[in-house]
Amino acid sequence: MSRSPSPPASSLNSSGTSEVCSVDGDEATVYAPSSIGNVAVGYDVLGCIADVAGDRVTVRRIDEPTVRIAGIEGTVTDLPTALEQNTATAGLLRMIDDLGLDFGFEVYLQKGIPLGSGMGGSAASAVGSAVAANALLDDPLSIDRVFAYALIGEAVASGAIHPDNVAPCLYGGVVLTRSVDPPDVIHLPVPETVRCVLVHPDRTVATRDARARLPERLPYDDIVQQTAHIAAFVAGCYRGDVDLIGRSLRDFIVEPYRAELVPGFSSVKRAAIQAGALGCSLSGAGPACFAWARAGDADDVRTAMLDAFGDQDVPAEAWVVKTQTPGARLV
Amino acid sequence: MSRSPSPPASSLNSSGTSEVCSVDGDEATVYAPSSIGNVAVGYDVLGCIADVAGDRVTVRRIDEPTVRIAGIEGTVTDLPTALEQNTATAGLLRMIDDLGLDFGFEVYLQKGIPLGSGMGGSAASAVGSAVAANALLDDPLSIDRVFAYALIGEAVASGAIHPDNVAPCLYGGVVLTRSVDPPDVIHLPVPETVRCVLVHPDRTVATRDARARLPERLPYDDIVQQTAHIAAFVAGCYRGDVDLIGRSLRDFIVEPYRAELVPGFSSVKRAAIQAGALGCSLSGAGPACFAWARAGDADDVRTAMLDAFGDQDVPAEAWVVKTQTPGARLV
Repeated sequence: MSRSPSPPASSLNSSGTSEVCSVDGDEATVYAPSSIGNVAVGYDVLGCIADVAGDRVTVRRIDEPTVRIAGIEGTVTDLPTALEQNTATAGLLRMIDDLGLDFGFEVYLQKGIPLGSGMGGSAASAVGSAVAANALLDDPLSIDRVFAYALIGEAVASGAIHPDNVAPCLYGGVVLTRSVDPPDVIHLPVPETVRCVLVHPDRTVATRDARARLPERLPYDDIVQQTAHIAAFVAGCYRGDVDLIGRSLRDFIVEPYRAELVPGFSSVKRAAIQAGALGCSLSGAGPACFAWARAGDADDVRTAMLDAFGDQDVPAEAWVVKTQTPGARLV
Repeated sequence: MSRSPSPPASSLNSSGTSEVCSVDGDEATVYAPSSIGNVAVGYDVLGCIADVAGDRVTVRRIDEPTVRIAGIEGTVTDLPTALEQNTATAGLLRMIDDLGLDFGFEVYLQKGIPLGSGMGGSAASAVGSAVAANALLDDPLSIDRVFAYALIGEAVASGAIHPDNVAPCLYGGVVLTRSVDPPDVIHLPVPETVRCVLVHPDRTVATRDARARLPERLPYDDIVQQTAHIAAFVAGCYRGDVDLIGRSLRDFIVEPYRAELVPGFSSVKRAAIQAGALGCSLSGAGPACFAWARAGDADDVRTAMLDAFGDQDVPAEAWVVKTQTPGARLV
């Protein structure tokens, strides 16, 4: 099995189509990076790659039309081994069934993204296995069809179809998912000068628990605010207007209910904004937090957020990354 | 008083700033066109000019620091004459107060937009009077400050600050309002090939009644859909992607609750879509309906919508207009 320590160049070309059909032999390994779901303004529909860690999924073609787990190593090893319950295998079962394959897949999973971190770990496993298995098909599917199988895997972790981490992990960059069936995924041209600061405190939040914190329903005032801000955010991206992105990068519908799940979040956010961040919110369900900042402010924002967690006696690690980097790719 | 039968060229220059400071004498007349609120995807935050009718507001500078109504003529004459209750005067009272003016305004209102039509009639009166009064100031305000006074007038009609008609009526084109305080209004570059079909059935719906039809709160599923679609709609505008605009021009949060207020709406919408419309929904609170369509389909869509109202024995009139036309201007 090939497990190079650093990911190679993207397998996604500029048109967003996958080149995953070029693989030799009966085995493929895919690196699938961490990502940020929601990105403040886009609960369940917006996601951003944040390549600070990644899962590495190796899939081997086997003779029987079934799926096997060969092993799980890395940051998480106590994942479900029931094939229907594992994010890396559930989509492959469906793929075999849908396509009527007369062969199957053996999956070896090397977890690099901590579970329950809010950094898209389950999505990465689901995307990595789907991209790798697709590369072993006699007639590989389009990236949009791979997306569907990755979503099935991700649904195992969160209980429903959620594209906000799967989409950036697969397509790269900052992506909006208008629809999952049929897939309608839109790359947003975030200005190159914007950096993403990702901070991971040494805590865990279960996605299912985070969803349970949300009220059943929301008043129109909050909905109106959220729609105005995601619309303005998208306009800011296309206009290359960093100030407008900064005015728009806010969450009225999720963060207010989940913030208290992350100890110290309010002071971390305050510190980020004071240090010049365009905006700051939870990464997915948390506990990881992210901020966007101009390149010249990003290091200050990172330090401020780390210090704020430190003041709460919460150990944390943090990174500054670009937003327009590629998603999952063969290694 | 000057009341030319057709509006002259725009007083808005390409940067969106007003040139309303160039007026002679102590009197100014403004033409303020009809508009479409919500535009399906943007409840309370998105609006589109649809210049098929307009209010004409003449304001004369008077010596006393107060506001007087000199007359109301046209499609509606039974409007409130209490200054705090009239959309054309409420904002001017505040303007005199805020600016400490030692003079006042006399307002003559010629209504061209039917009341309760869903075509932005109250917004037009509010915008028209604010733009005209501003032109009479010794130091005219920026267009964003005029916006604030027009919003005060509009609030009289609907009970709260709503920018979805005021913004397009003032700024022209298709505009998103992220924030009213401070004003943050964004022009969206809808492709030139898109036409707007506006259909006005001979019925009325009171905005307050329409708002009362909405539930108090909405489930997350609907909110997620709406945010995804307004975001994709904005992306479609900037990309010039008419297909994406068509896939996105939908309303999950208001139309389902208000549609039954407009007799025949569901069949009108079905007819519009079958005739090739990109999307179709209520114009504001209705009963007017609108569709967007490619230029080549617009006449068919118009005919189909009129016929569908006719099948319900509802008389209606309809127009095909461009979306990127100017807002209120001095005549």
